[in-house]
Amino acid sequence: MGAKVTRIGIVAPGRVLDEGIADRVTAIAGDAVELFFHPQCFLHDGHFAGSDAARADAFAQFANDPSLDAIWFARGGYGACRLLDMAFERLGAAARRKTYMGYSDTGFLLARLARDGIGRVAHGPMPADILREGGEAAVRRAIGFLSGADGEAGVEPGTLAPGKYAAYNISVLASLIGTVHAPDLSGATLLIEDVGEYHYRLDRLMFTLTSSETVRAAAGIRLGRCGPIPVNDVDFGQDEEEIARHWCARSGIAYLGRADIGHDVANKIVVFGARGVGA
Amino acid sequence: MGAKVTRIGIVAPGRVLDEGIADRVTAIAGDAVELFFHPQCFLHDGHFAGSDAARADAFAQFANDPSLDAIWFARGGYGACRLLDMAFERLGAAARRKTYMGYSDTGFLLARLARDGIGRVAHGPMPADILREGGEAAVRRAIGFLSGADGEAGVEPGTLAPGKYAAYNISVLASLIGTVHAPDLSGATLLIEDVGEYHYRLDRLMFTLTSSETVRAAAGIRLGRCGPIPVNDVDFGQDEEEIARHWCARSGIAYLGRADIGHDVANKIVVFGARGVGA
Repeated sequence: MGAKVTRIGIVAPGRVLDEGIADRVTAIAGDAVELFFHPQCFLHDGHFAGSDAARADAFAQFANDPSLDAIWFARGGYGACRLLDMAFERLGAAARRKTYMGYSDTGFLLARLARDGIGRVAHGPMPADILREGGEAAVRRAIGFLSGADGEAGVEPGTLAPGKYAAYNISVLASLIGTVHAPDLSGATLLIEDVGEYHYRLDRLMFTLTSSETVRAAAGIRLGRCGPIPVNDVDFGQDEEEIARHWCARSGIAYLGRADIGHDVANKIVVFGARGVGA
Repeated sequence: MGAKVTRIGIVAPGRVLDEGIADRVTAIAGDAVELFFHPQCFLHDGHFAGSDAARADAFAQFANDPSLDAIWFARGGYGACRLLDMAFERLGAAARRKTYMGYSDTGFLLARLARDGIGRVAHGPMPADILREGGEAAVRRAIGFLSGADGEAGVEPGTLAPGKYAAYNISVLASLIGTVHAPDLSGATLLIEDVGEYHYRLDRLMFTLTSSETVRAAAGIRLGRCGPIPVNDVDFGQDEEEIARHWCARSGIAYLGRADIGHDVANKIVVFGARGVGA
């Protein structure tokens, strides 16, 4: 009897997936997993990989498919928030037995899955990371985690201690704050990262996060990488860690140091929710 | 006995005011008003017109000055949100007898003033609008309103009907949603505008606004101008009005048409709060 093959369904909740990506990711996937790229990944509808209905349907179909073990979000790029009021009421028992993984814009879906207690939710690399230089490492890390072959080797080290965890793109979490889809972060160590935002925008985003009761209920914040930051017409005078420290201090939130996550090939995996003794 | 001269104090809650602006605005102010540019307007501290403490102190000092009739925010540019937890607990009786006017980033302060019931709060042109082509008209409109000389000639026509009103920059309001400083918009017609955001970002901002109970409690939304919108690598497929209509329809908020506000010289004045019979 052979080892169990992990069956992974791939959907694109925001922008379209380049055709070549499926082949490249499949080629390095190995025998422990079988990848199913939903045809929706390759639809075009303006900015998006198909209409809101097409993307929501693909997500709900694969989530509810009892033959699949995991849903792997294909890529980021704006669009996942438009599925929040179209998919979740349809998720049934099979959806609750799955692992879900993605980051960046797909954090909108991670947030609702985690809040609704649906499945095992993880913040980590996506198929489109294959496009980055050295992206194979990120894809292998994701597949090793989803298949179980690598155990927790790809998991962000600081999140292996007993505790409660969540990880988000800063812009995505700020967009969720105050909405009916906002996550419950109470007691969680919150890992955050961003990409390509001006320092003044990061400062404004950190104002929103740290001025919310949602984030103030967290156990503390760890700052991941913030990617290439555009040069502004006037230097902001604080870098991203100084900004994070400033707002944490100002709002009484514990700043717990850096985190090994970001929009890059080193992006480690963060499993949402509680782990460890008494969890 | 001469007519009463309206005494207007000017502070810069975000970025520094160019020196030339004070002279140009004073030159066209006329005899009905006397303008007092706080020295803080010309301080430099990295991105900001002085430290957070210096900006908060200048705002509180002028707001509490019983000899001033109005506070006119000098210009936009990120920074006003950093004063929200540093100034308001100091505002006394004299602050409650004033008119406050600004827009864009200074909307953070308009929001708290309106929520705390401090003074008469108005969304309208600022001194720095003199830098725009044809900016004299915007400055004259503001001064005519603050002095009372023009009555309601500069007021956004749709807000003259009995009702309750508020006006915000979309990014600023989205940043406030879910924070401890969020405004109470219940029953208000909400006028919104923005500048320089990609359509996909406007869509995400409208997701946040229309997915919040704060905005869902409003009587409806009127969309002002959204300024020059950068070209994205893929066309979004909807313009700003289609985006606003989409999210209003999706969340059960009344879309009430366009509004005559924006980051431009035609920007009309919106007085916050209730007006008219039974208000």
